[in-house]
Amino acid sequence: MTNSPGESPSVDGEVSRLVEEAKELQETASSLISRTSLEEDALRQRVASLDSRIKSLRSSLRSSGNSDKLEEELVRARYILSEGDAATFLPSKSHGRFLRMFLGPINVRANRKDVKLKVKEEYNNVRDRTALLFLCLPSLLLMLRSWIWGGCLPALPVQLYQAWLLYLYTGLALRENILRVNGSDIRPWWIKHHYCAMAMALISLTWGIERGHDCAQKQRGVQLFLKWAIMQGVAMMLQNRYQRQRLYTRIALGKARRMDVVWGETAGVEGQLLLLCPILFVLQGFEAYVGLLLLKTALAGSSLGWQVITCGILLIIMAAGNFVNTVQTLVTKSRVKAKIRKGKSRQELNQGSDDKSL
Amino acid sequence: MTNSPGESPSVDGEVSRLVEEAKELQETASSLISRTSLEEDALRQRVASLDSRIKSLRSSLRSSGNSDKLEEELVRARYILSEGDAATFLPSKSHGRFLRMFLGPINVRANRKDVKLKVKEEYNNVRDRTALLFLCLPSLLLMLRSWIWGGCLPALPVQLYQAWLLYLYTGLALRENILRVNGSDIRPWWIKHHYCAMAMALISLTWGIERGHDCAQKQRGVQLFLKWAIMQGVAMMLQNRYQRQRLYTRIALGKARRMDVVWGETAGVEGQLLLLCPILFVLQGFEAYVGLLLLKTALAGSSLGWQVITCGILLIIMAAGNFVNTVQTLVTKSRVKAKIRKGKSRQELNQGSDDKSL
Repeated sequence: MTNSPGESPSVDGEVSRLVEEAKELQETASSLISRTSLEEDALRQRVASLDSRIKSLRSSLRSSGNSDKLEEELVRARYILSEGDAATFLPSKSHGRFLRMFLGPINVRANRKDVKLKVKEEYNNVRDRTALLFLCLPSLLLMLRSWIWGGCLPALPVQLYQAWLLYLYTGLALRENILRVNGSDIRPWWIKHHYCAMAMALISLTWGIERGHDCAQKQRGVQLFLKWAIMQGVAMMLQNRYQRQRLYTRIALGKARRMDVVWGETAGVEGQLLLLCPILFVLQGFEAYVGLLLLKTALAGSSLGWQVITCGILLIIMAAGNFVNTVQTLVTKSRVKAKIRKGKSRQELNQGSDDKSL
Repeated sequence: MTNSPGESPSVDGEVSRLVEEAKELQETASSLISRTSLEEDALRQRVASLDSRIKSLRSSLRSSGNSDKLEEELVRARYILSEGDAATFLPSKSHGRFLRMFLGPINVRANRKDVKLKVKEEYNNVRDRTALLFLCLPSLLLMLRSWIWGGCLPALPVQLYQAWLLYLYTGLALRENILRVNGSDIRPWWIKHHYCAMAMALISLTWGIERGHDCAQKQRGVQLFLKWAIMQGVAMMLQNRYQRQRLYTRIALGKARRMDVVWGETAGVEGQLLLLCPILFVLQGFEAYVGLLLLKTALAGSSLGWQVITCGILLIIMAAGNFVNTVQTLVTKSRVKAKIRKGKSRQELNQGSDDKSL
């Protein structure tokens, strides 16, 4: 440890000044972090206690039955808590197994409102792009099949498409879990739906494409799957349009928090629903039909194996789940309508936040 | 809008009190968030400016050449900034394309030290569990192959193993990117290595397992791959032991920040390195050998197709990258050693943080 000769004192001084400054900044940082977390913890407790008091008073009002205006006031109080900056300090939803499996125990909750909205906005953009690709990619595959590939799909393009599906559903499931942690009321079924779709994409990758010479026969499952995907793309585009419009309407009415995502079918804008609902039911029927067809193929003793059976069962589960969720939403919607007809026009506002958790 | 009759005034009062309290909490939350982010921004600026002043003084000292003690002081200043609470306010590394692709624009940087360490600790535990499974699963497959399956691997267990590999590498790549954002100096190659491994796992899923009757011949690639995975498991377990021990030593010496992860081969604890290095080089050689064998199989005109060629190329790329990184680390290590021999015993401390960025 030799001190070099000829160091100018000014450099010496500058170095020790920097060391001092580093120590000082370290202390400032420590105290800022501990002070902030103390203040945040205190606020978190106050918000949680107010939230539970609102909830208990609301349920006692509801059981007494005849206090619409007071309940409305309470909904407004709850709305102030859950929509504004105080929402950051509401008890956080658990991260859930899926996020922990992929990301570990890192916190994905955004503190700042603008970050939350950026996440939501980007998610909507991903959905829009996805719907377009969902429409184009399988159409392209089917067109090339009849124009160039002579009725027989080659393995590589189909497998690339399936790998894309796997990435897509994994990304969507991760993003939806993140949105949920950030306070979105997304229905649990839509996330589970994406877990099923992930499993199906993974299984379809292991499913040999060209096995026999009679490929037109053997590829019937793949073709049906691609046709179903095209319909899915159309439905997704309509849904995205509808959901955005509805979300903006509900934000304007003060009914939804902007972190809400309602992928799929829910109550809302009247005119478009008349178009959307039949399409959704047809899609669900077609989904179940493809599932049954796959099971039939497998039971007829073809050599395609367990993949076909599992995909068939998954498709039927997804169709059933989608159907149940759509019907539940329509029932809720008609109930709200009936209440409105009874003249309790403001009641709808109170009901708003409950519809989503149904 | 009818006010119900018979509401007791006390309930009325309680409701309006709750609404008032919600408004008040909302305002408190707003002001806390905006005050905190102002203070944090100011601190961030001060930390960034000090950091750049330290860097520029250090490089000017280095170019003048003879100021070991002063440089050591600067390293200490930098260490105070980067290891303590001030690290939270150092300029953040960009999240990178991979995280954005899967998670969107959400922030995964932890502010609090304890959360960061929890993430790191959990990552180490995942690595330990992974190494064990890496050793057991392929061994089990190979044992069952000779004991029960009569020399011919069935598709399903192998594909389940491959799907597990895909999940594993995706999870590791996500976690390593998160650690990087949180200030870990993990070498970029190890993350890229996991991207390659993800691609290989995905491709191997599309690779038909039982195609012909001469499966012992056709499954040679899969068998080699499984044997390589077993060796990989052994090496990973040794590496994990070694890395942890080394990390704790370096933390004790004040050389490493605790967020550092050095998956794979780097400089360190002498005795174990003598055991680790030969194993790593043999492993890399075997990896390249499996890659070449796959290419040979494909060029010999077997019907396995593009998957075999791509996997072969990926294995060779990974082997080469691992080799280059190991050699680079050993070279750095011997340089540091040479410096120590020259008597500049404290110099090692200064060099510490640079080794990793090499």
